[in-house]
Amino acid sequence: MKNDNFLRALLREPADRTPIWIMRQAGRYLPEYNATRKRAGSFLALAKSPELACEVTLQPLERFDLDAAILFSDILTIPDAMGLGLSFAEGEGPRFARTVRTEEEVRRLPLASLEELRYVFDAVSLIRKSLAGRVPLIGFSGSPFTLACYMVEGGGSDDFRLVKSMLYARPDLLHAILEKNAQSVVAYLNAQVAAGAQAVMLFDTWGGALSDAAYREFSLAYARQVFAGLARTAEGRTVPRIFFTKGGGLWLEAMADCGADALGLDWTIDIGEARRRVGDRVALQGNMDPAVLFSPPESIEREARRILGSFGGGPGHVFNLGHGVSQFTPPDHVHALVEAVHRHSPGAARA
Amino acid sequence: MKNDNFLRALLREPADRTPIWIMRQAGRYLPEYNATRKRAGSFLALAKSPELACEVTLQPLERFDLDAAILFSDILTIPDAMGLGLSFAEGEGPRFARTVRTEEEVRRLPLASLEELRYVFDAVSLIRKSLAGRVPLIGFSGSPFTLACYMVEGGGSDDFRLVKSMLYARPDLLHAILEKNAQSVVAYLNAQVAAGAQAVMLFDTWGGALSDAAYREFSLAYARQVFAGLARTAEGRTVPRIFFTKGGGLWLEAMADCGADALGLDWTIDIGEARRRVGDRVALQGNMDPAVLFSPPESIEREARRILGSFGGGPGHVFNLGHGVSQFTPPDHVHALVEAVHRHSPGAARA
Repeated sequence: MKNDNFLRALLREPADRTPIWIMRQAGRYLPEYNATRKRAGSFLALAKSPELACEVTLQPLERFDLDAAILFSDILTIPDAMGLGLSFAEGEGPRFARTVRTEEEVRRLPLASLEELRYVFDAVSLIRKSLAGRVPLIGFSGSPFTLACYMVEGGGSDDFRLVKSMLYARPDLLHAILEKNAQSVVAYLNAQVAAGAQAVMLFDTWGGALSDAAYREFSLAYARQVFAGLARTAEGRTVPRIFFTKGGGLWLEAMADCGADALGLDWTIDIGEARRRVGDRVALQGNMDPAVLFSPPESIEREARRILGSFGGGPGHVFNLGHGVSQFTPPDHVHALVEAVHRHSPGAARA
Repeated sequence: MKNDNFLRALLREPADRTPIWIMRQAGRYLPEYNATRKRAGSFLALAKSPELACEVTLQPLERFDLDAAILFSDILTIPDAMGLGLSFAEGEGPRFARTVRTEEEVRRLPLASLEELRYVFDAVSLIRKSLAGRVPLIGFSGSPFTLACYMVEGGGSDDFRLVKSMLYARPDLLHAILEKNAQSVVAYLNAQVAAGAQAVMLFDTWGGALSDAAYREFSLAYARQVFAGLARTAEGRTVPRIFFTKGGGLWLEAMADCGADALGLDWTIDIGEARRRVGDRVALQGNMDPAVLFSPPESIEREARRILGSFGGGPGHVFNLGHGVSQFTPPDHVHALVEAVHRHSPGAARA
């Protein structure tokens, strides 16, 4: 591989520079992405076409000196492959045709069909081949809890009324869903690795909406189960795992013990403070507020330096935003960020 | 006063029982509130009528054995009294007719007119008189930063693109707005206290959307300025101050040092852990997930006991939700919560 700084940083091994990639780096802020999406007809058609998914995955790498590629896909492929019928109305969030709320619906919920997910594994193979060793490829999945939120609510939610009602009134039902989700995520990520993914990331987008006790019981426990089931190596090399709970800053110590090699951080926590709390147990990925990219290159550079300085050098830092890049971001500002991070990477990253 | 447990708990003095009140306790989950609001014609007409504001403030106290009343008002009265033109479209959030984005708009922004806010102080006087010493009355304001979010964005936002762009690109402009907001909040809360409010709460609804460094500079610093400017006593008694940053669990130590007597907690932090972190510097208010109230009385009671147990007895706990009660909450479930908290209040609350 030409540039494996990303994989080394995740494993807290010395790297040549602080690697950077950007959540949702293949996305609507790029005109070429919008052109491909238009050609595909819809977001879901784009995600389900291995050729087009490969095309958009590579687009940001043509523009920016990024240190990793991430599979272009959606976090809701698994419930779709459980038969729930995913769709996206234009300008709206995801919707499921069928929800999982009653005892009967929970009982009948199948594991995700890997056959139905073949388009994902085909995309992984194709992207990996197209990358030709340039940078590593990240596979990913939504976390069992985050998937459950959508499966119970039937789409996005701002109060999680239905899934939290289930959590408090019928915790047994939610546990049954989470158990099926965890098994499905393990099979899904292992198949991505078998197809060529060189690192995996578990996105727990909504775990941060839970109380401390509920987070540990309904989100973290199933992340742990997922990591315990994952292949540790592929192609003779360790496959690093990243765990990201948005809004999870209070739980870092517990998260550092769940089997992940690296934790994703949003921007609410100072990365130096996070490092003091997790010690040498995990690497850290993050943690710039995506809103910084709305400001001019000078302030982008200033914030990048602040985060690099706060981490303080040495191995174990992957630079990233603390959430997906906004569709309103000028691509030039992403360029400014990537350059600033590489320019100010501490030589100490080697130490 | 017949029941001053709330004031004593905020000052970490022994109380007869763990006091409880509920954020947004006068709200849409109560049919009698909806009836009054309908009579008023709109939310804003309700908030701007001292008589109707008094009426809805007292409604939850008729139903439930609550230990405090809170002024019925809106957090955006101050920018409205700066001339920005607040309105609420039916079923939508708040909107301002004028925003504060340019250098010129910031320069011309006046302090809030206390004359324009007279309806609030009249409501406070009327409510206080109507309470007749039954329980204490809480006054409140939005925090300088939270007000600025709405003033710059012109309404609610899910990414705070405009206010954060200003924060990173032109921090001087945001500081100028925050300075005017802080001065206005001081005058506003002092006038509420002069009119009869016996405790005050500063709602920092959106501080939790900031990075660690930005929170300290743009939200917490101005909360500190507000508390430094507030009258300490009224009617010969200390006026306790509560500071609540939703999503602020990572910053508790710094918040405990900003001049507040008590900190509001959302549900993402375990209250026992929060107590260990702040020690005896402040009391704590919280911290049940409002979603617990969607579940049956048995699980409401179980969660209430869990929180009381986690706090662990002794003075300094005011029970509350970690955010406003949802409009979808059955009133009977609020009753179950209030009763459970009183029933399971530790005798140790006296110790």
